[in-house]
Amino acid sequence: MENIVIRYLDHPKLDHPVFVEGLPGIGNVGKLAAEHLKDELKAVKFAEIISKYFPPQVLVQDDGQIRLVNNEMFYVKRGPGKDLILLTGDYQGLTPEGQYELSDFILREVTKLGVKEVYTLGGYGMGRMVTKPRVLGAATHPDLVKEMEKHGVVFSRGEPGAGIVGASGLLLGLGRMYDVRAVCLMGETSGYFVDPKSAQAVLEVLTKVLDVEISFSELENKAKQIDQITSKLRDIEAAPEMPDKREDLGYIG
Amino acid sequence: MENIVIRYLDHPKLDHPVFVEGLPGIGNVGKLAAEHLKDELKAVKFAEIISKYFPPQVLVQDDGQIRLVNNEMFYVKRGPGKDLILLTGDYQGLTPEGQYELSDFILREVTKLGVKEVYTLGGYGMGRMVTKPRVLGAATHPDLVKEMEKHGVVFSRGEPGAGIVGASGLLLGLGRMYDVRAVCLMGETSGYFVDPKSAQAVLEVLTKVLDVEISFSELENKAKQIDQITSKLRDIEAAPEMPDKREDLGYIG
Amino acid sequence: MENIVIRYLDHPKLDHPVFVEGLPGIGNVGKLAAEHLKDELKAVKFAEIISKYFPPQVLVQDDGQIRLVNNEMFYVKRGPGKDLILLTGDYQGLTPEGQYELSDFILREVTKLGVKEVYTLGGYGMGRMVTKPRVLGAATHPDLVKEMEKHGVVFSRGEPGAGIVGASGLLLGLGRMYDVRAVCLMGETSGYFVDPKSAQAVLEVLTKVLDVEISFSELENKAKQIDQITSKLRDIEAAPEMPDKREDLGYIG
Amino acid sequence: MENIVIRYLDHPKLDHPVFVEGLPGIGNVGKLAAEHLKDELKAVKFAEIISKYFPPQVLVQDDGQIRLVNNEMFYVKRGPGKDLILLTGDYQGLTPEGQYELSDFILREVTKLGVKEVYTLGGYGMGRMVTKPRVLGAATHPDLVKEMEKHGVVFSRGEPGAGIVGASGLLLGLGRMYDVRAVCLMGETSGYFVDPKSAQAVLEVLTKVLDVEISFSELENKAKQIDQITSKLRDIEAAPEMPDKREDLGYIG
Repeated sequence: MENIVIRYLDHPKLDHPVFVEGLPGIGNVGKLAAEHLKDELKAVKFAEIISKYFPPQVLVQDDGQIRLVNNEMFYVKRGPGKDLILLTGDYQGLTPEGQYELSDFILREVTKLGVKEVYTLGGYGMGRMVTKPRVLGAATHPDLVKEMEKHGVVFSRGEPGAGIVGASGLLLGLGRMYDVRAVCLMGETSGYFVDPKSAQAVLEVLTKVLDVEISFSELENKAKQIDQITSKLRDIEAAPEMPDKREDLGYIG
Repeated sequence: MENIVIRYLDHPKLDHPVFVEGLPGIGNVGKLAAEHLKDELKAVKFAEIISKYFPPQVLVQDDGQIRLVNNEMFYVKRGPGKDLILLTGDYQGLTPEGQYELSDFILREVTKLGVKEVYTLGGYGMGRMVTKPRVLGAATHPDLVKEMEKHGVVFSRGEPGAGIVGASGLLLGLGRMYDVRAVCLMGETSGYFVDPKSAQAVLEVLTKVLDVEISFSELENKAKQIDQITSKLRDIEAAPEMPDKREDLGYIG
Repeated sequence: MENIVIRYLDHPKLDHPVFVEGLPGIGNVGKLAAEHLKDELKAVKFAEIISKYFPPQVLVQDDGQIRLVNNEMFYVKRGPGKDLILLTGDYQGLTPEGQYELSDFILREVTKLGVKEVYTLGGYGMGRMVTKPRVLGAATHPDLVKEMEKHGVVFSRGEPGAGIVGASGLLLGLGRMYDVRAVCLMGETSGYFVDPKSAQAVLEVLTKVLDVEISFSELENKAKQIDQITSKLRDIEAAPEMPDKREDLGYIG
Repeated sequence: MENIVIRYLDHPKLDHPVFVEGLPGIGNVGKLAAEHLKDELKAVKFAEIISKYFPPQVLVQDDGQIRLVNNEMFYVKRGPGKDLILLTGDYQGLTPEGQYELSDFILREVTKLGVKEVYTLGGYGMGRMVTKPRVLGAATHPDLVKEMEKHGVVFSRGEPGAGIVGASGLLLGLGRMYDVRAVCLMGETSGYFVDPKSAQAVLEVLTKVLDVEISFSELENKAKQIDQITSKLRDIEAAPEMPDKREDLGYIG
């Protein structure tokens, strides 16, 4: 078996498509954002990627049928130079080697489809509650930094201090070898919860950059649900007679 | 050394055999079921699989001779379209890569022998004692879901929530690439003990599906032994003066 | 770099040599035994094996020069059919894959040198102090079991229960593919200390089997040193006023 | 993607250059020393090494641009037989295999550039505060040991007892296959802090050996900063009323 296998369901003809990646990660921000964009734009699935760098796992769907854990690619036709390819999925590669191999593989595939411009989406863990998430950026070229700053993206010296780990970083780092221009957009997030609000902040920037219009109501609904949970947590925390309950709720993701 | 090595002791001529897999896992349900079926049907060993994805270990047999840990394949001749191939063994692959490679290897070998239909057997850990285990299912095709439901298999939305990890899942997930139709049967089990009762529940479904008749007395005997141990545990638990003894018994497997 | 690299310092002409392996493991029994045999027989080093399956480590020798951690092979010329090849070294392979690859590699090399007969040496951890260690055995052929029993080797049903892990087991398990006849000799040991007494017990059997005569005084000296340490431990344990000191001594190896 | 990729920015013509390695490790001594030497000699970067044996991570630079974590090589032109190649970087290989592959790769590259002489720099963890760090040595040839002793390097029987782990050791251990003469210089360090003082001790030896003159004021400044932190720690430790604060400071690195 090959280390990574791609299966094309369709071979769409795209005109200089822009590639957007959002995979599971901190606060699940990247995945939430990419899936929301996919749903809103009614993107069409055209490729599935399976790999031995993913967990050896199948998921059972509501109809009782299984599917192997994977990454999936979708396209959106919007006209010359404005087409999109979206990538999302169940997992990132489990090992450093897997991460490098998968990002390299994806870059090879999408550049064959004409991609020259890449946006990767993720969360930036703050370790504390964030009420109004900023969107931090990183880029492969200085003019991209300038362009993103115009859209409100924050390029802050020393942030993120530990760099960017995983696909959202590697697609930029390895991108040079594929001659792509790439930006990583990171929504601030506590890191304790799935964070639709941070995903929305990221998408608000991205849709302006891509000149796309979408509704955010689905993400806003999800954010309200999370808010209800977190405010319950705060109540419990505030109640002096039951201080230990807080721990029971743990990571809600 | 190859990553996986198969040694054929015999090259049986089989007519569209059905493939049944049962390897160690939760409650050892799959392995118990496959071994019981093998014993009852007097299945004949015809192949051994060794691999560097298994632990670097030999087992010492009662006569002092060693054998390398492995997976083994057995056949049962039952007539056109009813022949069986059974797979069981000491271990599953230790790593995700090993799991993928082994499942892919096994699918390649058994499809060469004419297999088009696959049943994988396993346990579904409930995290609590189960008195009457249901058999949950997952399948590669919607008509298989319907067929299994007729035999009492439960396809329950959101169960198993975490999907199926290991060979019992991958043989379905990778099966599509080999054009096989496959079903996973999972017996409910606490996950705390080896569970012959759950194995029996799985086999009761499978033998109906395969139209095989076997005795379950051996499994029933094993289940009684486990019941005796667990009821002792409950007694100890109930006895207020020695609450700590329970921990000493730990995992009995 | 190759996964495993062998460097031959010499190409000795040997007549059906017997191969003896003793690498680090439980109680260091195998390594102690192989090194003692090597020293007593003034065996000559003729090959070094380095591998990326070993730790990335060099050792600094007393003269300030370094050497890469390795496995080494030695020969002893004793006449037709009685020549010996000994293998010992700093480490076993770090991963299951490494263990398989190294054992396979070693079997390939030594069978090229004419080896048909293999003895692997190790310890059998009892988890309690052992005053008079028995030597347990395992073998590839039933007549080897019988022959070893004549030399006092114990083949005890269910011992070792967990099988044999590492090179001492794999050289037997993979040996079948190289058409070698092999025996594993395991000295009982607590598993808490380096155990020269257990190594001596193993060598007393092996030297009878190989018809070699050696002195054991060096091993006896080492055993006395260990005995002094363990008896100090027992004194400390017996002394009621300082019960905690025992833990400070930990694993002496 | 290749396991290791080197990108040459320049192909400098060097005359029998001496190779100096300093990568992250205990007390960061090797990296601090190599970077200081690079800065003081205004060494010119000519090659970048990326690898799937490094973490899947990009770093965000102050201008918002990213760079993949890597190792970098620099040259210094000093005249025939005195040219230098320096290697430093963000990480060592994450796995044993990665360590072996990277060291082998680097030796292959630098010997192609004419290197016959290698110095590797590192720290030697003492597990206690060190006020006046000695420089310990290890070498590939006995005459190198003698030569280093003349420069005050300590070759102490049994030190370092555990050998040398990582690139600083492997470049010596694998160096024999590339016919290089190599020395490892290890500055004593507590192992608790980044240790510029130890890096200076190492460089004081190396610059004498290489007949280079550099200023140490930058390292001395860094050492003062660390000293201030550690003396605060000692104060806190001495203050009886707040004994727990010490733990909050943890590893400062």
